Amino acid sequence: MKDAAEMYIPTFDDVRAAYERVKPHIHRTPVLRSSYLDGLTGAELFFKCENFQKAGAFKVRGASNAVFGLSDGEARKGVATHSSGNHALSLSYAAGRRGIPCHVVMPRTAPQAKKDAVRGYGGIITECEPSTSSREEYFARVHAETGADFVHPYNDPRVIAGQGTCSLELMEQMKDFGGGLDMVVAPIGGGGMISGTCLTLATIAPDVKVIAAEPEQADDAARSFRAGRIIADDAPETIADGLKVPLKELTWHFVSTYVADVLTASETEIVDAMKLIWQRMKIVMEPSSAVPLATILKNPDTFRGKRVGVIVTGGNVDLAKLPWMQA
Amino acid sequence: MKDAAEMYIPTFDDVRAAYERVKPHIHRTPVLRSSYLDGLTGAELFFKCENFQKAGAFKVRGASNAVFGLSDGEARKGVATHSSGNHALSLSYAAGRRGIPCHVVMPRTAPQAKKDAVRGYGGIITECEPSTSSREEYFARVHAETGADFVHPYNDPRVIAGQGTCSLELMEQMKDFGGGLDMVVAPIGGGGMISGTCLTLATIAPDVKVIAAEPEQADDAARSFRAGRIIADDAPETIADGLKVPLKELTWHFVSTYVADVLTASETEIVDAMKLIWQRMKIVMEPSSAVPLATILKNPDTFRGKRVGVIVTGGNVDLAKLPWMQA
Repeated sequence: MKDAAEMYIPTFDDVRAAYERVKPHIHRTPVLRSSYLDGLTGAELFFKCENFQKAGAFKVRGASNAVFGLSDGEARKGVATHSSGNHALSLSYAAGRRGIPCHVVMPRTAPQAKKDAVRGYGGIITECEPSTSSREEYFARVHAETGADFVHPYNDPRVIAGQGTCSLELMEQMKDFGGGLDMVVAPIGGGGMISGTCLTLATIAPDVKVIAAEPEQADDAARSFRAGRIIADDAPETIADGLKVPLKELTWHFVSTYVADVLTASETEIVDAMKLIWQRMKIVMEPSSAVPLATILKNPDTFRGKRVGVIVTGGNVDLAKLPWMQA
Repeated sequence: MKDAAEMYIPTFDDVRAAYERVKPHIHRTPVLRSSYLDGLTGAELFFKCENFQKAGAFKVRGASNAVFGLSDGEARKGVATHSSGNHALSLSYAAGRRGIPCHVVMPRTAPQAKKDAVRGYGGIITECEPSTSSREEYFARVHAETGADFVHPYNDPRVIAGQGTCSLELMEQMKDFGGGLDMVVAPIGGGGMISGTCLTLATIAPDVKVIAAEPEQADDAARSFRAGRIIADDAPETIADGLKVPLKELTWHFVSTYVADVLTASETEIVDAMKLIWQRMKIVMEPSSAVPLATILKNPDTFRGKRVGVIVTGGNVDLAKLPWMQA
């Protein structure tokens, strides 16, 4: 693995270029408010709703930036990734828009619904065994056979610059709400969204604190943050299934340089926050997206009286298996 | 029961006055689109999202119009109704905003969550037995004791004028989407929303067809429409629990005069449409609100190539008892 010094670190110019590139392919998602949740937290909350995004998640920003940034020659061979989540969907969506192949290595044990969704967007699935060694073996083979461009779910400067377009939009939209923000809270898994958020805000709104929100049961980013080095967990288990992956060198660069704090919430707190948002805001979102509100409710003194942006990262959830049904 | 000739029939001026009156107390709810559902239906669908409305449903428009239209003398005695659904919530909300009492007669068997929600908005509940005779007896007593103004859930000109503000907003918002509509589809139960929609569109957009959507299992409006007189069912059963009530003289006036057609959908079709909207649009809405899409999917030839407004009436649903869990 390369360290950050060897990798290209994206700049705000890359975010601006990414925005021009991805704009025709993504939604400018709305910012929603809830007077009930404002009352409950004593804060002013501004929910940036990437659950309404194309392919159902913010990941389409980074994936589209990678896909539409390829030269025609590069693009012809397609793109490839390993993911069983929103990145696989988003990359398939973006590749489909460009009319190029998208190869996805997925464990054969992944839910049928996820495989169907990737195929629905035109993705070509290669099934591997559910182990890291099998995934790497299959991915290397697909990569060698196709010559496709590897788009990592988060440890890729193009992906981070793409995710940075989300807070660019949010800050523009804040003008409709009479001003800026004191902080932005976003979930942290591999750190792609948080890195993009830091990248953008450090340039256009450096006074806005970036706070990462993480499940207690997958708190590798919180422990990394305190230890000053990447600590990766082996197979953490949490309902917030988008947040199980570890930081990598490029996202660690942004987390260690810009993030103000990493707050955690328990599984019960995450599920309660998710249910509260569904009930009160009438929006469908993933467990991962509820972690920010869970940490806000848990740390009222940190947020009271503040204007807080909350990134609702995605809305792809299995409606037949909602967490409050599993009691 | 009085017939329509004896009741005041609201006019479009009443809708305009209602809008000025209720505007400070309601949300201007967004109009959402779905490229997936457009592709599936071959129509251009514009979803007017009253599930994001205050108190979670369009009913707050009519309830607020009634409450804020009272003189101070009338208001002092409060308002009263019998309902176990969104009208009870909405009237409690509006009365709370005006600081006057709201008396609600509800069957003691109504779900605890509904009672809690009404009380949460400050409503005062009187429990009756779950029968029409008991409800009428208790309501007459509450009415006599309090002198409160009776606000019927739909057979009331103030309520119909209030519901008419929804399509007034929708037609204004359509300017952002480059033009008008060919039709509007809304669910029909007692007919308050449909009547308000007819009232407004007959004046400001008389070429827009109004289509009522109804569960097959509670198709009294469809049968009334074809028979040319009100046919009321005795206790119909449907998952779309907001749509079990019959038409009354005032709503029948609007339905019989202005509605272009009443289309029906089966329980399965309603649940499938509901799930589709949750999955694809990432919004939480009630089974009743899915009936329009269910009828659109069932009658593709009627809607293909048309610009169709769809009223999403409410979002108050028990998240622990979603219909696709009961298979």
